[in-house]
Amino acid sequence: MNQELFDQLVGISGVDQVFSSAEDVAGYLYDSTEEYVRPAACTDCYVIRPGTYEEVSAVMKLANETKTPVVVRGGGTGACGAAIPTVPSIIMSMERFRDILEVDETSMMVTCQAGVSLAKLNEYLDEHVHSLYFPCHPGDEGAHVGGMAIENAGGVRAVKHGIMRNYVKGLKVVLPSGEIVQFGGKLVKNNMGYDIMHLLVGSEGTLAIILEATLKLYPRMDHTGTLVCSYLDTESAIASVAAVQRKGIIPLAVEYMDRMIALKTAEEISKTWPMHDEGKVDLIFMVEEATEDALYETAGTIAEICEEAGAVNSVIAENAKDQRDVLEVRSMIYEIFLPYFVDSLDTAVPMAHIGDLLRDIDAIAEKYHTTSPRVGHVADGNFHNFIMREDGKPPVWADDMRRDIYEAALKYGGTVTAEHGTGKTRKPYMNLQFTPGVIEVMKGIKRAFDPNNILNPGVILDL
Amino acid sequence: MNQELFDQLVGISGVDQVFSSAEDVAGYLYDSTEEYVRPAACTDCYVIRPGTYEEVSAVMKLANETKTPVVVRGGGTGACGAAIPTVPSIIMSMERFRDILEVDETSMMVTCQAGVSLAKLNEYLDEHVHSLYFPCHPGDEGAHVGGMAIENAGGVRAVKHGIMRNYVKGLKVVLPSGEIVQFGGKLVKNNMGYDIMHLLVGSEGTLAIILEATLKLYPRMDHTGTLVCSYLDTESAIASVAAVQRKGIIPLAVEYMDRMIALKTAEEISKTWPMHDEGKVDLIFMVEEATEDALYETAGTIAEICEEAGAVNSVIAENAKDQRDVLEVRSMIYEIFLPYFVDSLDTAVPMAHIGDLLRDIDAIAEKYHTTSPRVGHVADGNFHNFIMREDGKPPVWADDMRRDIYEAALKYGGTVTAEHGTGKTRKPYMNLQFTPGVIEVMKGIKRAFDPNNILNPGVILDL
Repeated sequence: MNQELFDQLVGISGVDQVFSSAEDVAGYLYDSTEEYVRPAACTDCYVIRPGTYEEVSAVMKLANETKTPVVVRGGGTGACGAAIPTVPSIIMSMERFRDILEVDETSMMVTCQAGVSLAKLNEYLDEHVHSLYFPCHPGDEGAHVGGMAIENAGGVRAVKHGIMRNYVKGLKVVLPSGEIVQFGGKLVKNNMGYDIMHLLVGSEGTLAIILEATLKLYPRMDHTGTLVCSYLDTESAIASVAAVQRKGIIPLAVEYMDRMIALKTAEEISKTWPMHDEGKVDLIFMVEEATEDALYETAGTIAEICEEAGAVNSVIAENAKDQRDVLEVRSMIYEIFLPYFVDSLDTAVPMAHIGDLLRDIDAIAEKYHTTSPRVGHVADGNFHNFIMREDGKPPVWADDMRRDIYEAALKYGGTVTAEHGTGKTRKPYMNLQFTPGVIEVMKGIKRAFDPNNILNPGVILDL
Repeated sequence: MNQELFDQLVGISGVDQVFSSAEDVAGYLYDSTEEYVRPAACTDCYVIRPGTYEEVSAVMKLANETKTPVVVRGGGTGACGAAIPTVPSIIMSMERFRDILEVDETSMMVTCQAGVSLAKLNEYLDEHVHSLYFPCHPGDEGAHVGGMAIENAGGVRAVKHGIMRNYVKGLKVVLPSGEIVQFGGKLVKNNMGYDIMHLLVGSEGTLAIILEATLKLYPRMDHTGTLVCSYLDTESAIASVAAVQRKGIIPLAVEYMDRMIALKTAEEISKTWPMHDEGKVDLIFMVEEATEDALYETAGTIAEICEEAGAVNSVIAENAKDQRDVLEVRSMIYEIFLPYFVDSLDTAVPMAHIGDLLRDIDAIAEKYHTTSPRVGHVADGNFHNFIMREDGKPPVWADDMRRDIYEAALKYGGTVTAEHGTGKTRKPYMNLQFTPGVIEVMKGIKRAFDPNNILNPGVILDL
């Protein structure tokens, strides 16, 4: 990176919005990828924080002229290293684009700028649009809407309304060429041309830069409840989930917890876990209904189905505090276990093969004389298995164990990553899941958008 | 086309499965596109009906070597001319791929070969899998699963569970190179690499050939009901739909009917339309629930909300026969009006702008001294407006009127085609909706899959 480029960036967004010192740049170098997994950041970067769409466009034109890589940065909550610059780059932070532009209550959609955080969006809807809400919740509320859309984020509450792909109805973007264009809009159906919008969702900042996203909202239900059911084994827990769904009951979320993990997390954050029976596995069902009666009926039906399928116990978190406690234990697991693991995997398999995969993973863990604790978005077939540290450090067999688990997931028709993305950390496994011919097609797609390979180069694939 | 190519095709699938006579080929030349709109078919074509995936692959390799266009044909129910060969082509019919391969009741998914018709899929599920069904219903049950997926078909029942994109979870395809690959599977979440599967959905046979599709199934509800509400004007009908959805009630379908159209269709097919009040617009709500009580409660709540929003009357079709009559009138409109119109448009706009668009269309129709009767999937913002004939023939102003309506839809953030596709008939309007830069990106995508432009050339765009 050189002074001339710095000056050109200053020419675009002003001297207050361009940073080059190590100190200023440092906060923009890493996302939330686990420290032993993430790539080392290149520190030879400039940060620019554009304030208008035209400035974003101008940066892309400059980047094309000078063949300088651009790494787009949202909330920095990604978990696959997609926002970590590994070559000298312009880091383009979208943090100044933080306006909620429109809530259209008739169309039930909100249009936000890319830099609006999930926390801000939720607060705004709570305050101003009581009847509608945004159910999607990929964990960290510091995530930005643009990042959530471009990463196709998932999270706990994806069972009823799906992942980000199901919410995204329109995107205003800057193409690598610098052109500003709109795909989709407040539309639920659109078949004109190729569906570029759906291609962009999950493209991890490599094909275009999101300026605005139009997202579906859902009616806010007045009553929410949390049901915890316990099981002696994984198989009956999974059978419960399938049985509940086949009855036409679609919970907001169904979470799988190893009891051991739940108890340890609860202890660490000084909460009480509601289950103390002989169970080894717990399921959390989050349900929402318009009336209290309907809520209790739904929760009761779920409990019945689960007991038929082998649950040894079920507890409805009756009040707001109990509900909060259960969900807080769930949401804190990652943080509590972070010092103990090297990597948190993100495989998904068909519902019918969850039992097979978890058995295989246990066998794989045994092979390496370790265990692989897990939590899972079980109704999505999506499990986060931990690869644990040994004496506080990454074990030498960590890479082999990871690959074994990926191969097991793929054997059952699964995927290496369900919701966290390919990024830079899972790119080495692309050839496990795709043939050279398919990767070649993907490279052709990248070239169609970004012939100079300047936008997030090295994410998903190398040209 | 020449004898050598014919012999090579015979070498691939056998002499019984390759046709070249005008008589044999004739049935493969047209889809369901309206006669005055569809392009003229090129009759210099061979038809091949491969029986194995390897044969499909071999055809593509041959087509690449000889630079011969290939047009893939499913059920021939498309409505944008995508399956009509307009240059000398190999027509590859998928009709022999008609096996339902697996119903996975735990994962709630079915995997079918591309040539399975919607009728067959529905019959199979009725007979063998009582608890699950496939709600998507794009009208003509002769449609093939492969065609429905590649066209991203919609139809009446898209409100609750969405269009085909929401059902497609996995696709086994032949790439233009001849390589057989699988994208996705029985997975609800998958973020590895670019989402080629979602790019293929809606790509209209130009990027790959579907061999198998894995589709989401939903629990069959035991009780379905049909509610018809009548209104004096369009505005209050639309307000009703928004109000119902904001209450968290998601019907299977919500259909908009001009009363005049409903009455004429009912008369022609000798059915009784239930509404004979002063209303000018009727809405049909299809609802499904697990219990009869829940059904009546939901229908009652919808009726209440509609009356508050201005409905002058509401009738619940109480028994199966009355329900069938209402739905049959709806489903026969297209056929009854076919001799009277030139084109049936397929625009969609945001819910909040439906009233604006319909007012504009009425004004446009007046400008051409005609009317534009319509039906609509109103909860999707998707209306099919007819451009009527004059003295039984296409009026000279038909093209101008069509373009005016498209421009009006786009003005309100809409799309030229919501569910019928771009194909060859709407390709001339691509530049109304997309900039040259975006069309260039789409061409690059086409080239990434199909560098020789042999697969359905001239559909969506020309290279």
